[in-house]
Amino acid sequence: MELIKDLGVTSPNGFLSSGIHCGLKKNNKKDLALIYSEVPCVASGVYTKNLVKGAPLLVTKDHLKDNKAQAIIINSGNANTCNGENGLLDAENMTIMQGKELNLNPVDVLVASTGIIGVPLNINAIKDGIPALTSSLSKDTNHSASSAILTTDTFTKECSIKFYIHDKLVTLGSMAKGSGMIEPNMGTMLSFITSDINISPKMLQEALNESVNISYNRISVDGDTSTNDMVLILANGLSNNILIKEKDENYYKFLEALNLLNIYQAKNIARDGEGATKLIQCIVIGGNSINDCEVLSKTIIKSPLVKTAMFGSDANWGRVICALGYSGISFNPDKVDIYFKNSTGTLKVCENGVSIPFNENKAIEILSKDEITIYVDLKLGIESATCFGCDLSYDYVKINGDYRS
Amino acid sequence: MELIKDLGVTSPNGFLSSGIHCGLKKNNKKDLALIYSEVPCVASGVYTKNLVKGAPLLVTKDHLKDNKAQAIIINSGNANTCNGENGLLDAENMTIMQGKELNLNPVDVLVASTGIIGVPLNINAIKDGIPALTSSLSKDTNHSASSAILTTDTFTKECSIKFYIHDKLVTLGSMAKGSGMIEPNMGTMLSFITSDINISPKMLQEALNESVNISYNRISVDGDTSTNDMVLILANGLSNNILIKEKDENYYKFLEALNLLNIYQAKNIARDGEGATKLIQCIVIGGNSINDCEVLSKTIIKSPLVKTAMFGSDANWGRVICALGYSGISFNPDKVDIYFKNSTGTLKVCENGVSIPFNENKAIEILSKDEITIYVDLKLGIESATCFGCDLSYDYVKINGDYRS
Repeated sequence: MELIKDLGVTSPNGFLSSGIHCGLKKNNKKDLALIYSEVPCVASGVYTKNLVKGAPLLVTKDHLKDNKAQAIIINSGNANTCNGENGLLDAENMTIMQGKELNLNPVDVLVASTGIIGVPLNINAIKDGIPALTSSLSKDTNHSASSAILTTDTFTKECSIKFYIHDKLVTLGSMAKGSGMIEPNMGTMLSFITSDINISPKMLQEALNESVNISYNRISVDGDTSTNDMVLILANGLSNNILIKEKDENYYKFLEALNLLNIYQAKNIARDGEGATKLIQCIVIGGNSINDCEVLSKTIIKSPLVKTAMFGSDANWGRVICALGYSGISFNPDKVDIYFKNSTGTLKVCENGVSIPFNENKAIEILSKDEITIYVDLKLGIESATCFGCDLSYDYVKINGDYRS
Repeated sequence: MELIKDLGVTSPNGFLSSGIHCGLKKNNKKDLALIYSEVPCVASGVYTKNLVKGAPLLVTKDHLKDNKAQAIIINSGNANTCNGENGLLDAENMTIMQGKELNLNPVDVLVASTGIIGVPLNINAIKDGIPALTSSLSKDTNHSASSAILTTDTFTKECSIKFYIHDKLVTLGSMAKGSGMIEPNMGTMLSFITSDINISPKMLQEALNESVNISYNRISVDGDTSTNDMVLILANGLSNNILIKEKDENYYKFLEALNLLNIYQAKNIARDGEGATKLIQCIVIGGNSINDCEVLSKTIIKSPLVKTAMFGSDANWGRVICALGYSGISFNPDKVDIYFKNSTGTLKVCENGVSIPFNENKAIEILSKDEITIYVDLKLGIESATCFGCDLSYDYVKINGDYRS
């Protein structure tokens, strides 16, 4: 079971994709993407917990009531949110127009949008783009599709994974976008997962929920939870493996693959947080419960003071223990050990809640790398959790200070 | 009842102050302050809710068990937190040494520290500084004292207020510091209030609690809640007003003055948030409860995406409604109206949760000012709340990316 980083959503049998520029974004950037399965799929989704929900999300949720789908149309440049009744009509219309072009019932087409909130969608640009979008569907255009869903992302996020269930090769593919407004609890980003696995709708949904909880839901870029974001998975069964319909060995094999895929993408999204120069991973161990560890870890990852210290390669661990303290979780500050780690080594900077002398040069060496782990041992219990984030740089401010223009 | 902006803690009868450089900060900057009342005071405090508490806070809390105090010694440059048993001894020692010099029992001396966490305090510098600190006590050195408590603040924060209880003139004075690590629920900053009012310890504590809840607890600069911060009030009774011992008319007059003073200082602290270029005030009206309005308002004030939009004078109200949505508070997105306001005018940008056309030039004119109000009408009930924050600029990152060096 290994990740293949240069393949994406078209990697599983029977999936095609495309991505074009239809006119929502400036400078000829791709802004319309399509994922299509040659046969019907079972499908599941996980959605933002934001009370304000984008129109596409409402339409997709409705279309997934039957747990079936065959295509996903995605636009970037406009979130189609807070556009009232017209927004809902536009989102529905995208599925109708795309369904017509693919000869599908509109309820088998899902829709997602990302971009600015509160600006009416240019539905005509999308309408005019759909024929070209459809005719360019292919196995080889996964990169066009993954480019067309980006907003302020600086790189495309794709991967694939292959494994066997008995003698049947099963493949998963993924494309995602992230960058700003990335926060826990599926206020997250867009992530689309394709697979040729043969699985029941119930098991697909459960695996997706389990996996999202320890991957995308453990990212925090800026603490803002978006109105539009979702994770969708389509499974078309073309691998012909024996149907997974309960939590047996094969289910857990699939879950393992899905976790590998989603954690890889979650890290990609964190690493590409707006203005980020470093991926920050925070591992909290020795807790009384996974939930305690997760909240503590995420509080550290979210702290603007920790994030700016990481940007400045400053071993200011006081900000780490301070964040632990305001997390709302009970622990013993006098037991806490804190380390900074990366591939070059490990440095203990706090023992039993008190400063210990450490080599500042070693600290700078560790913190200057583009992937840093903050490691916290609570020394209370046996549970642990890992969250993913990024540093806070000048460029976050630059990118977000004038997003609309 | 009016604010006097150029007077501070020495404005009430019987209070003296001083501020010197003892060697904790670089570049000869003042780093040690003293507030002293010529007669004993009733005193109250409100403290950080961070589980990790600075040593000075623990000592001050202990010394205030009898609700009495006569002096406060404050150092900046080092928070004396996470320094273990030695930190506690150092904090206690500051009160002993200062008490000796002033001929006071150490339990009548309070102590506060602000600055870096986890670095041992240079107690010798403080020891050597105390004689000069004490001998320079005066009515006219309030500005030195208010300078000596600053960290990354860019201006001193002082004010005074005078009012009558019957024929007795009562005066309140205040000095505060804020800047980074400023968040709700008394994870706030340092604020010291002096008064010559004659009031019972119980009424003093209640007034302080009430007032802090609608002033300092409604600030958010970066969402980080500090380990050390507190609000202390000393009242020496020298105004000879009839003793306030219940919630009568005089109590409410005092509370009104205290609110005026604390809200003014809260705004000062928000305005001087690290790297801030603008004071952002968020008023949420039409809610079902004050708590709902407060949480909604604070979620907006805290959102990095709202903060960067304000920095960039970008009328991206979608980020405002998005923040409302992830606040955890129940409301009807389809009823929400959003306005941007300042002294030059008011601009409605969203009606019933939907974008409405607005004049972009007018928006830029309003948002370019250094004091902006985001005004949200939920149209559900009759409650409201106001929170205070600031924009997020390049300088926040610059200041915090390398604080320790």
